[in-house]
Amino acid sequence: MNAYIAGGGLSRFGKRPESMQQLMSEAAEEAFGAARPHGITRESVDAVVVGILNPAEFLDEGNSASLITDHLGLTGAAAWRVETASSTGAAALHAACHAVASGRFGTVLALGGEKKSHQGTAQVTARLARMIDRSERRMGATMTSLAALITEYYRRAHRLGPEAFEAVRGRVAVKNRRNGCANPYAHFRREITLEQFSASRRVSTPLRLFDCGPISDGAAALLVTSRRTPLRLSGLGHATDTQALSRRGHLAFFAATRRAAAQAYRMAGAGPADIGLAEVHDAFTAIEVISAEDLGLFPPGGYAGALQAGRADPGGELPVNPSGGLLARGHPIGASGLAQVVELCRRLGKEGARKGRPPHRGIALSMGGLATNNLVTIVELEGAPAALGGEPPPVPGTPPVPMEAPDPEDGVVRAATTLFSPPAGFEAPLHFALVEGQAGGLGRTVLARAFREVGAEERVRLRRTEQGLFIL
Amino acid sequence: MNAYIAGGGLSRFGKRPESMQQLMSEAAEEAFGAARPHGITRESVDAVVVGILNPAEFLDEGNSASLITDHLGLTGAAAWRVETASSTGAAALHAACHAVASGRFGTVLALGGEKKSHQGTAQVTARLARMIDRSERRMGATMTSLAALITEYYRRAHRLGPEAFEAVRGRVAVKNRRNGCANPYAHFRREITLEQFSASRRVSTPLRLFDCGPISDGAAALLVTSRRTPLRLSGLGHATDTQALSRRGHLAFFAATRRAAAQAYRMAGAGPADIGLAEVHDAFTAIEVISAEDLGLFPPGGYAGALQAGRADPGGELPVNPSGGLLARGHPIGASGLAQVVELCRRLGKEGARKGRPPHRGIALSMGGLATNNLVTIVELEGAPAALGGEPPPVPGTPPVPMEAPDPEDGVVRAATTLFSPPAGFEAPLHFALVEGQAGGLGRTVLARAFREVGAEERVRLRRTEQGLFIL
Repeated sequence: MNAYIAGGGLSRFGKRPESMQQLMSEAAEEAFGAARPHGITRESVDAVVVGILNPAEFLDEGNSASLITDHLGLTGAAAWRVETASSTGAAALHAACHAVASGRFGTVLALGGEKKSHQGTAQVTARLARMIDRSERRMGATMTSLAALITEYYRRAHRLGPEAFEAVRGRVAVKNRRNGCANPYAHFRREITLEQFSASRRVSTPLRLFDCGPISDGAAALLVTSRRTPLRLSGLGHATDTQALSRRGHLAFFAATRRAAAQAYRMAGAGPADIGLAEVHDAFTAIEVISAEDLGLFPPGGYAGALQAGRADPGGELPVNPSGGLLARGHPIGASGLAQVVELCRRLGKEGARKGRPPHRGIALSMGGLATNNLVTIVELEGAPAALGGEPPPVPGTPPVPMEAPDPEDGVVRAATTLFSPPAGFEAPLHFALVEGQAGGLGRTVLARAFREVGAEERVRLRRTEQGLFIL
Repeated sequence: MNAYIAGGGLSRFGKRPESMQQLMSEAAEEAFGAARPHGITRESVDAVVVGILNPAEFLDEGNSASLITDHLGLTGAAAWRVETASSTGAAALHAACHAVASGRFGTVLALGGEKKSHQGTAQVTARLARMIDRSERRMGATMTSLAALITEYYRRAHRLGPEAFEAVRGRVAVKNRRNGCANPYAHFRREITLEQFSASRRVSTPLRLFDCGPISDGAAALLVTSRRTPLRLSGLGHATDTQALSRRGHLAFFAATRRAAAQAYRMAGAGPADIGLAEVHDAFTAIEVISAEDLGLFPPGGYAGALQAGRADPGGELPVNPSGGLLARGHPIGASGLAQVVELCRRLGKEGARKGRPPHRGIALSMGGLATNNLVTIVELEGAPAALGGEPPPVPGTPPVPMEAPDPEDGVVRAATTLFSPPAGFEAPLHFALVEGQAGGLGRTVLARAFREVGAEERVRLRRTEQGLFIL
């Protein structure tokens, strides 16, 4: 695919009083500045792809693509909005690549942003909860509680103790916060210690405050062009999964990531061993662990050791989230997927080193919802050395459970969480578990709510009510 | 651009009790049925582009692209949502074309739909009003009142009397309702007479109820593929304009349509004289008149005569909206732009005739907001005869008025309307006018609100308040 990057730009991330249009302009202007040496200017732009999650409710706006295009002074250009939940920015970038590679447009501006810090956390959380399955939402589940269950499920699948995995999560948080300190665009630019991590309040057990990415405002821009530049978008991958955890055939990894990664590596003619730099979706600490392994950058269960050995640090063999990631740079939803690639572009061939040589290929993974709509992007510097190859881990042949599959009547708890900040209409704390079914729906693992704390390996009976599936 | 249509499908349009997912499935299944002879099946689909306007507020849903893809049994496929206000369906189709023509995907399902009839008209209207400029919205303007002003502006620019133009609008409504009777998918399948048109209640003067498209539910699907079929997507055009009427350099035509049309004709290597069939955005009767002329299908001011002579009827020289258009087929926003192309595909080479031969090239125009984000699509049958050429009317060099341009202090009324069903928080009736500035902002035409009925050619003084620009 012939799609090159002429320039990238970011706004500062964080709580920003400016309008969405102003944040978008800030990022776009920086991208135009970076593109000037390549002969790409404002006049080169044929189309604008805008990534925003929910301008209707967050900004009381509609018709956003033309609105923002007009604000940028590009009135007249083709413009459309793209959305894929929290991977929206990456989807805008891929759409820009298609538009350029199709031959229809010479240069396309991919622009993503989010402005929601002016709304209360409870309201923002409720609106973001729409990314998860309706029936799971109706039980009071939020992104955080489901991420907590996935965290526990992964930990137990890899036979790690709670304290041992808390230390792994802590290392992710400490590393990304430290990286954020060096990033002038980051939302958080203050280090935290492992002790501070472990002292931070529990949000949804085992997740603590410092396990979770912030609500940020910000914007990111990339100018994608058919004109040859030193930075090529060499690999794209994109795959979806069923929203409901209760319908997934797998819970210890993300099939959408593995599928998207396999596509991207194939298109790039490269493998995990050729990657020198990674920006992965770390809305929650454990998601970075799972993602780094799903991309094949580290063997399944191998990221914990790599982290401890400093191999994912900026000076390490394969820096992961050298920008600070979503945890420290911040997570303005429409911007994040684009910002990851801007960060890769800025670092390729400069910082970081794998086996003693500067990285020539970078990979970005952006996740929509809880791994429901995932995009992988590989960027490479001109003259990237020949491929060392490798493969991401395979996706076992586990199709989604049919929607009409019967509920199990009883089962064994495989992961549990207690959520302390439930959505409106629910009283804290809320207890959830992933229960592996026994009689009826054999082998199917479902989300259930409990009226008490439940423990892993506990055998429980289940009953469906109008509100969802409950542990008796 | 190598993008072919393997099959199209529609759900029945109207008030539908089914879920959005069910409507989408209905359209997709029909498309799969039509694609079978071309060897395209469900398994051929690599990606799904979903067009929906505002699932958050209309359906309490997020993450729609993966949700719908999963519901269709295509779990795993790449999926993203596209939105451009009321032209969303057309934008989803164009995105599918890029995805296929880029070489990344072999077959892409473009799928659009809308379900909002379960919400009250006032709420739907308020949400749809976000398509217009915020400052104009704040004055109480709605899509209908702005369309009414554009209707009046066009009428006066072409020196037509109010009764004469009411008859033109009536003929559009009568023709499209008659066409809808023959369309089993149409929302309205009952003819109306010119007398019934003229007896229907005024919504925003001069517009009557039968000037306006309905609020419909429904879905449309097109399978776009790189595999050669007899139907090629030969021309695409896409252009934006500034949202605010007060900032446009032109009001008697739509620059975004003319620009998009010029692009589409150029790509298709064809001109207006080669078009045998048209589906144009007729959310309001006068918009069909303006659009048919902006596409160059009839000379500026020439559509009225063509209508009267029956040249735009199904048996005429150039049938316009033979499906019934938005006025009769209905206007489920995310579906409309796709449905237009499905209708073209079904009629090309079969119905209609221009200069005695069946049409080989069809054109569709979809409009986002009040001509803020417009897309033109040309479809042609294999073996379409050599181009007769022609050009759409030019866009005079009128850039948008800068955002910080001063308000005129006085001016002359060029068009006026009285809106009888204002948005929440406003008391009926509301009076609006397009005022051509004299002293200060010379030549600039702005939207102003009045506290009384104002007449065309009246000289008025203007004053800006926090609520907007007012006629003293």
